[in-house]
Amino acid sequence: MKKSAISVGIIGFGTVGTGVAKILLKKEKELQERLGFPLLLKRIADTDTKRDRGIRLPADLLTKDADVVLNDPDIDIVVELIGGIHPAKEIILKAIRNGKHVVTANKALIATEGKKIFDAAKKRRVEVGLEAAVAGSIPVIKIIREALVGNTIEALFGIINGTSNYILSKMTEESVDFSTALDDAKALGYAEADPKFDIEGIDSAHKLAILLSLSFGAPFSFSKIYTEGITEITPLDIQFASEFGYKIKLLAIAKLVDSEIEARVHPTMLPDDSLISNVNGVFNAVYVEGDAIGQALYYGKGAGEMPTGSAVVSDIVDIARNIRTGAAERIRGLGMPVNRKLSIRKMEDISSCYYLRFSALDKPGVLSRISGILGGCNISIKSVIQKDRKKEKAVPLVMMTHKAREKDIVLALKKINKLPVVSGKTLFIRVEAKDE
Amino acid sequence: MKKSAISVGIIGFGTVGTGVAKILLKKEKELQERLGFPLLLKRIADTDTKRDRGIRLPADLLTKDADVVLNDPDIDIVVELIGGIHPAKEIILKAIRNGKHVVTANKALIATEGKKIFDAAKKRRVEVGLEAAVAGSIPVIKIIREALVGNTIEALFGIINGTSNYILSKMTEESVDFSTALDDAKALGYAEADPKFDIEGIDSAHKLAILLSLSFGAPFSFSKIYTEGITEITPLDIQFASEFGYKIKLLAIAKLVDSEIEARVHPTMLPDDSLISNVNGVFNAVYVEGDAIGQALYYGKGAGEMPTGSAVVSDIVDIARNIRTGAAERIRGLGMPVNRKLSIRKMEDISSCYYLRFSALDKPGVLSRISGILGGCNISIKSVIQKDRKKEKAVPLVMMTHKAREKDIVLALKKINKLPVVSGKTLFIRVEAKDE
Repeated sequence: MKKSAISVGIIGFGTVGTGVAKILLKKEKELQERLGFPLLLKRIADTDTKRDRGIRLPADLLTKDADVVLNDPDIDIVVELIGGIHPAKEIILKAIRNGKHVVTANKALIATEGKKIFDAAKKRRVEVGLEAAVAGSIPVIKIIREALVGNTIEALFGIINGTSNYILSKMTEESVDFSTALDDAKALGYAEADPKFDIEGIDSAHKLAILLSLSFGAPFSFSKIYTEGITEITPLDIQFASEFGYKIKLLAIAKLVDSEIEARVHPTMLPDDSLISNVNGVFNAVYVEGDAIGQALYYGKGAGEMPTGSAVVSDIVDIARNIRTGAAERIRGLGMPVNRKLSIRKMEDISSCYYLRFSALDKPGVLSRISGILGGCNISIKSVIQKDRKKEKAVPLVMMTHKAREKDIVLALKKINKLPVVSGKTLFIRVEAKDE
Repeated sequence: MKKSAISVGIIGFGTVGTGVAKILLKKEKELQERLGFPLLLKRIADTDTKRDRGIRLPADLLTKDADVVLNDPDIDIVVELIGGIHPAKEIILKAIRNGKHVVTANKALIATEGKKIFDAAKKRRVEVGLEAAVAGSIPVIKIIREALVGNTIEALFGIINGTSNYILSKMTEESVDFSTALDDAKALGYAEADPKFDIEGIDSAHKLAILLSLSFGAPFSFSKIYTEGITEITPLDIQFASEFGYKIKLLAIAKLVDSEIEARVHPTMLPDDSLISNVNGVFNAVYVEGDAIGQALYYGKGAGEMPTGSAVVSDIVDIARNIRTGAAERIRGLGMPVNRKLSIRKMEDISSCYYLRFSALDKPGVLSRISGILGGCNISIKSVIQKDRKKEKAVPLVMMTHKAREKDIVLALKKINKLPVVSGKTLFIRVEAKDE
């Protein structure tokens, strides 16, 4: 229990750090009224102490030296907002060693080094808040950990990377190709100069790793998550998806199936009348199915100064309330005990419906050759579209399958891609079907 | 701080009580693993101890006497699930007097007697959990009170009555009239024999009163909420709404406008490409705009044994964690201090766009008479639809206005309804427009 003000130090004064500082300073009085005690922003450390961030700071608040924050005996909560693995990891571990609670938005770090950090925090009996690490302003960590505590999570679908959702929305709305949409995202500041983490699904997989730990107690399993990005999606696929009644989204998927967890990030076709398929632009959404609540969806901004700043502040307040009332370890660790019995299902063992786009020559018998191979691999076809007959040229032939096993699809496509009448690699997109 | 099990007693063993008991009993082991201590369902009181609720209870758990729960010194948390004002109010106040924490799903009681209950709880330093009182499984109380603590809520729109949303969805999808849709809702168990509270907007207003207190610190102001139900909506209005690009929903609206609060429940036209207008059937959704997070939407089941049971269990767990760690009053009262400076704006002073459906005779000059009156009352017309010309008969003439003041609309319609060429009362529906 602490009777004086609860003091906060921020390390990393970039976009999110600025948002946090704005809220803590501008809403100091409101926050004190709500909490019943003062929250004091005591220090901010950043290598750049000169840049104008559009906020007036009290004198002496800024320092270039993270250790000034880490070693300040008055500071109760250290907010790490520099991102990346090093030196963020060392900073967080030092804060914990110094007995400070930690709030972070660092999904890459938690997804890969979460166990080490939570073990260290448990030993020192301090808390690690990570609401801002997943889906920005959507309080999905709090919801899963606290509001859904009486539920077994059965499925979770997340649009949790705003950059790729912006790109796919733009491709869908304006029929432009991937690279045009990416350039646009860069121009608007939605994509970084090196957009690899976003467009290849890695950022979504980092966040999914955190959600897996929260939802199922699966120990941080980033390396086991199948990850596929959106770079091969074409306007043609989006067009065909639309004809079948679907939209394409980069989805982070977790499912509990026969005591195993499916954990995967890939472009996914979703029924166009579902709420989640109508989440567009840089917005994020997390769809959850729980055994008690049934279906739920949580929607909001996934990034940005103020939305992510708001998530960080909610963690600061939660921890400050615990410090104030002496409620250390009110929620233990991630709030879900580690479940070693649950394993991540191998990708080849999952089942799904599939969209297949073949580059087939328009010759007699092509459809029968392809469908013959599919049938021989236990894959049954739900519908077919073939258009633009250009004699002897490669034309797109697309199919939707009924539910099939991934390993059967991989085997069938290997055979089909070798057919002389097929002129290129078959593209396939997994489908969350309307009726299966 | 309490080292033994935290004990729970339920009063009211109906639909929600059964859901709570199912979760606490069936998930006893999982909950203990998550929490780190046992939660014990010690007693359930209900006047009917015979009915089969599809759940096996340990011997001696059921009692007919609420006082057995209220006077049990071992019981830490009393869950009131009988609903209505009496004797729910007396039971809750007695539980509080006996030093017990309370969890309730009773929106009518909290909306009307909330001040008395929270004052009593504050005096005895016990908590009152009310997550299940608003929007069932959607953790909107927790989100506003905790996750959005760094935000000023600027607007809140809720579809928070599943019965009326089911009826409007059915009318929209199947072009049936209100009474047919209501009969269907009754047959499916979505509407009670006396559906007054649901279809007249009273239930939504109860819930809005609670949200107003949480969001703005407005003291429970149920009686000041303008409330209008869905009974006058016709398939014709739904059809016209669709032609203008809108859907009709029963919306609970709270807005912060010029240091006043708008608080109202009424049928509202919403752009058909907005997420909230696509919330159909018995589902609920709450859309929130905060100054830091921007736009957000939370969606899920608003009623039912297990969804609402899940919300009750999350309150039980929150309180149990506080009891365990000695963190009494970790969050004070509603988490938002009472703000006496904010007042509820008079309905006549609000501004909105409006849909107007006139029953006008199809005679020359009608349109000019009506539009002349509107113009004279500072109401400007955005678009008009007139169809089905039947000479000399009353035909629907519909208009969408630009933003206008409610008092001007009321005055203009008073004048218009007196015109000899107008054969009945003009129906008007407020519109949350796409571009204002």
